[in-house]
Amino acid sequence: MNVQVRDRNLKSAPVAASTAIADCDIHPAAKSIEKEIYPFLERKWQRHFETYGTVARQGFLSGPAYPKGQPDASRRDAFPPSGGRPGSDLPFMRAQHLDRYNVQLGILNPLRSGQGIQNADFSNALCSAVNDWQIAEWTSKEPRLKGSVLVNYEDGAASAAEIERRAGDPNFAQVLTLSRTGEPFGQRRYWPIFAAAQEAGLPVAVHAFGYGGFPITAGGWPSYYIEEMVGHAQACQSVLSSVVMEGVFARFPRLKLILVEAGFAWLAPLAWRLDKVWGRMRDELPHLTRPPSEYIREHVWVTTQPIEEPEPRRHLIDSIEWIGWDRLLFATDYPHWDFDDPERALPVAIDDARRRQFFFGNAAKVYGLA
Amino acid sequence: MNVQVRDRNLKSAPVAASTAIADCDIHPAAKSIEKEIYPFLERKWQRHFETYGTVARQGFLSGPAYPKGQPDASRRDAFPPSGGRPGSDLPFMRAQHLDRYNVQLGILNPLRSGQGIQNADFSNALCSAVNDWQIAEWTSKEPRLKGSVLVNYEDGAASAAEIERRAGDPNFAQVLTLSRTGEPFGQRRYWPIFAAAQEAGLPVAVHAFGYGGFPITAGGWPSYYIEEMVGHAQACQSVLSSVVMEGVFARFPRLKLILVEAGFAWLAPLAWRLDKVWGRMRDELPHLTRPPSEYIREHVWVTTQPIEEPEPRRHLIDSIEWIGWDRLLFATDYPHWDFDDPERALPVAIDDARRRQFFFGNAAKVYGLA
Repeated sequence: MNVQVRDRNLKSAPVAASTAIADCDIHPAAKSIEKEIYPFLERKWQRHFETYGTVARQGFLSGPAYPKGQPDASRRDAFPPSGGRPGSDLPFMRAQHLDRYNVQLGILNPLRSGQGIQNADFSNALCSAVNDWQIAEWTSKEPRLKGSVLVNYEDGAASAAEIERRAGDPNFAQVLTLSRTGEPFGQRRYWPIFAAAQEAGLPVAVHAFGYGGFPITAGGWPSYYIEEMVGHAQACQSVLSSVVMEGVFARFPRLKLILVEAGFAWLAPLAWRLDKVWGRMRDELPHLTRPPSEYIREHVWVTTQPIEEPEPRRHLIDSIEWIGWDRLLFATDYPHWDFDDPERALPVAIDDARRRQFFFGNAAKVYGLA
Repeated sequence: MNVQVRDRNLKSAPVAASTAIADCDIHPAAKSIEKEIYPFLERKWQRHFETYGTVARQGFLSGPAYPKGQPDASRRDAFPPSGGRPGSDLPFMRAQHLDRYNVQLGILNPLRSGQGIQNADFSNALCSAVNDWQIAEWTSKEPRLKGSVLVNYEDGAASAAEIERRAGDPNFAQVLTLSRTGEPFGQRRYWPIFAAAQEAGLPVAVHAFGYGGFPITAGGWPSYYIEEMVGHAQACQSVLSSVVMEGVFARFPRLKLILVEAGFAWLAPLAWRLDKVWGRMRDELPHLTRPPSEYIREHVWVTTQPIEEPEPRRHLIDSIEWIGWDRLLFATDYPHWDFDDPERALPVAIDDARRRQFFFGNAAKVYGLA
């Protein structure tokens, strides 16, 4: 970390090749649904897709709640020269991202890939097809990449079955869900996901976004994309409150939860508030035997992108010290517009040992790849 | 602040009578709607109330979204010996609260008092009646107390008219709204409130709670009261995002906003995130000419109850230092169950000058009562 590298105008900053990077949030895309996904999808679902597309909530072709003009809101330089969507060309991803930044471990989080579609059977089929596709097009071709087990999280039993089907498969590093669900994510309809993930030894990653039918604020629909973006931080606070307070960690003591792309500086203030209220009202929650913050410290990891950049910077250190340096998983969000460049992402100076932990060691540990 | 006073088992802790207290969140109640409110309510609205009660959202007799068995969820010792609801007996409030803690300034925030009722005309009439009642039963009898101008915030024009009616009246210190509205609170339907409050020189206080028709999380309805309680912190983050991003402070440069009973440790992380996103996407918001954090530091105050109590405590100092010691308004929430005792509320040691500022000076300044 030096001043030169942090200069945003410096186009040719030297690659810090000596630091191995684990990037815990890479978004791959299919070049063509017909060519790449159909091979894994029953003919009846292919016909369903051609007839109805994807309906409501968030699916393949429906946009997120706040529409964005650019496909997947990507970096302008991330469109592959071969054509197609950003994130759809493995050789280009290798050159532009994996090799360039010495990414030794990349976690694939396919978005808009079947999760949250209103037709539950179609959603289940599409999630499973996209899981097959991750192996066929990505992880079998590039050992640095690991897939996520996509599940139709609104269908707990089907999600558990899909997780069991992938358990023990080294192509997958985690289970992937989204943060805006039909009910708060700690509620019992989602428990089969937690049970199956714990049994398979896979962390459950909750990626910001998705859509469960409700606005992102308790006061309705915001006007601006910026509010929707920042609103995901509040949505993820609610996810974590629900998961802790419903006793998910008490019931599934080996479960690991990773919160992806929601920031993290809010984590400590949320834990303080939960502890304070729990201290006075624990009668309501006999299934919690320890303060909420203890469950959070033990079971929760957060990815770094988008990292907060307070002035003065020491506040960031203070935040991280409560969360724990061992709980941060570096992520870039490649190929999206709000990509965090590894050379500039961490806005404070840290020593080499901590740097290795931050950029690689924590991820290797949480994914059991050490 | 000394160790003795912080011992929760010490029942007879000496009153720190030397420190004057401004309590920015006291909840008065009517002994009887018929006896105390009817005198200020047209006969047609009395009949309406007797026929229909209050419908939907949050009114006089409807509970908040999460029902609580005890009236207003009060301290068990706050029921007046004379009978009636907690907070309904001025002499008892004097003895139990104002005199006991040397409260020299108490801001009245009447809840469930006409705001958010579905029938807009009835809501307007009831809010105005409760404003009259605050003068008749409270502020005219007790000079240490100041009222809040209740407004039916979903009706911007009527709210502005009510504020104009009360402008310059020393019985009132602020305008009061609630945090869960029908649309995010920065949107233009609420601008007449901000315009009128600025013109009247009254801060707008947004008290946690209320109900606008939406669940408190982006993922639907939580199971537990604790989640609803802590959810207000997320709801208030959305309120502040909306107010800043819609350009309310840019449009109303003398407006003061006070966030009541939502905690405050989340304020800095929210501002950091808003700044970061704004830095990259300010094209979307041409009405914002400065970073969101600058508007927040200039226009926003927060009440302290419920104060976060992190371990280690230094994190609280760090939070406050970003927010600014001059932005904290002490509040107890009397007579509610989660009352913060002035003798124990501030869980860190501070020097006398800062103590005076924290417990009184900041409030005197924001309310222009210095």
